[in-house]
Amino acid sequence: MKLQSFVHAGAHAWGVREGQHIRLMTSHWPDVVSALDAGLDQIARATQEAAPLLDVAGLQWLTPVVAPRKIICVGLNYGRHVLEAGRELPRHPSVFIRYADSLVGSEQPVWRPRASEMLDFEAELAVVIGRGGRHIPMEQAKAHIAGYTCMAENSVRDYQKHNAQVTPGKNFDRSGALGPWIVTADEVPDPASLRVRSFLNGDLMQDGSVADLIFSIPALISYISSFTTLAPGDVIATGTPEGIGATRKPPRFLKPGDVFEIDIPGVGRLVNPVIDEPQCGQDVE
Amino acid sequence: MKLQSFVHAGAHAWGVREGQHIRLMTSHWPDVVSALDAGLDQIARATQEAAPLLDVAGLQWLTPVVAPRKIICVGLNYGRHVLEAGRELPRHPSVFIRYADSLVGSEQPVWRPRASEMLDFEAELAVVIGRGGRHIPMEQAKAHIAGYTCMAENSVRDYQKHNAQVTPGKNFDRSGALGPWIVTADEVPDPASLRVRSFLNGDLMQDGSVADLIFSIPALISYISSFTTLAPGDVIATGTPEGIGATRKPPRFLKPGDVFEIDIPGVGRLVNPVIDEPQCGQDVE
Repeated sequence: MKLQSFVHAGAHAWGVREGQHIRLMTSHWPDVVSALDAGLDQIARATQEAAPLLDVAGLQWLTPVVAPRKIICVGLNYGRHVLEAGRELPRHPSVFIRYADSLVGSEQPVWRPRASEMLDFEAELAVVIGRGGRHIPMEQAKAHIAGYTCMAENSVRDYQKHNAQVTPGKNFDRSGALGPWIVTADEVPDPASLRVRSFLNGDLMQDGSVADLIFSIPALISYISSFTTLAPGDVIATGTPEGIGATRKPPRFLKPGDVFEIDIPGVGRLVNPVIDEPQCGQDVE
Repeated sequence: MKLQSFVHAGAHAWGVREGQHIRLMTSHWPDVVSALDAGLDQIARATQEAAPLLDVAGLQWLTPVVAPRKIICVGLNYGRHVLEAGRELPRHPSVFIRYADSLVGSEQPVWRPRASEMLDFEAELAVVIGRGGRHIPMEQAKAHIAGYTCMAENSVRDYQKHNAQVTPGKNFDRSGALGPWIVTADEVPDPASLRVRSFLNGDLMQDGSVADLIFSIPALISYISSFTTLAPGDVIATGTPEGIGATRKPPRFLKPGDVFEIDIPGVGRLVNPVIDEPQCGQDVE
């Protein structure tokens, strides 16, 4: 199943994607997180009810988990990307946090910030947690995965390098994206076989295999849950393959009018245009 | 005013501290965040209503903002602490994120984690945002501050040094604390004059002046809001003065039975005992 969030009747709704339609799931399932918690069987049963079918044309997509409690990102997790950044292979995952408001849904514009022209792209496979837990052993990690989605883990490179901590460069409002949907784990029997590619205005920029992760998905779930409790709907971004804009010669940063796409066959295709951050007042809320 | 959150009748409640009593504010103000958003005048008016008075004895305190949307921490912001860590003075603040579940309220036990015996203490002044905003100029920052509280920004040192990113070591479940209350900004005319001290089992461990911050509170608000939107109830921890356990000879880490206290005269005193993380099952929620 593909679980998708969107704006419907002025509010947040979600549903199950069926081709060019979406089966609206509002009556019993106020949020996709509740569904992830309840399990796929119950979602499947609920989809057999007489839920209305909507045409996807014109729908405004939200991130598939709206305002996840935790969005935990892993940097430098593809060997060749580590080498392009001029670093040694790490002994532990490089972990940082993104806030939900740094991400938009599929087809929504990402913002090149006012404070910098160095917005760079990063295509990533993201894992969505189903069953929560703490101290999850690697060999049990798979049972905690609800599904997968794509993350444009875009980064503002000068802010990222202000300091050893990358947090500011990773948290600009609406600088990245998540989506287009959660594909449930039953449809991805072997995530290590997934291929992560990105395209800028149609040109291939990144092309990596999840098999090349330095820290596998079970290793990440185990490590992260050794310090923090994971809950349904939490998101773990697994790192980006080589080919980012900052290391190109000359560097290629995102600018208004660009379209950045992530394609992970078997998961989905996330497409976002780039615009300049609006010049509105100081107290944007 | 001192705004405090606690458990009452099995639920989250909050109120205004009056000596050894607390004026319960549940009828019109479901959450302290709503109050911070509404402004002090409205809280003051509400406290004149016939709200019940509770004795503080036996109340279980929660963090004064329960589950803040954003808890943004600043590292290495006292000159002498930077030198004790063997680093140069930075050109930009060192910013990272803590999750709310890494913090407990006043008098609640903090957990020494199962995964490490290197839980260290860090006493910090924390700023609570009142009016939200983005791109806040330094000279307007003061108007966005609702009040102040204390944060035990405790850190698991080996995890913190697994990688350049300190996030894992800063996010162990219930490893730190926030409280005991928010003292509203009108009672702290000059935060730079505040003194931050910490005590371990009664012994003075840290003694710093907020005047020694490398990046002032207005500078932090301005920098942070240059990349992310601040909202009512968000918390900014301003850094810790020298004297942490890891740099002592021999090192002194927190262990079960210890009591760690932060005293910031004019703000409050935050006291937390230390216990071992409970040995419960894997799926702690």
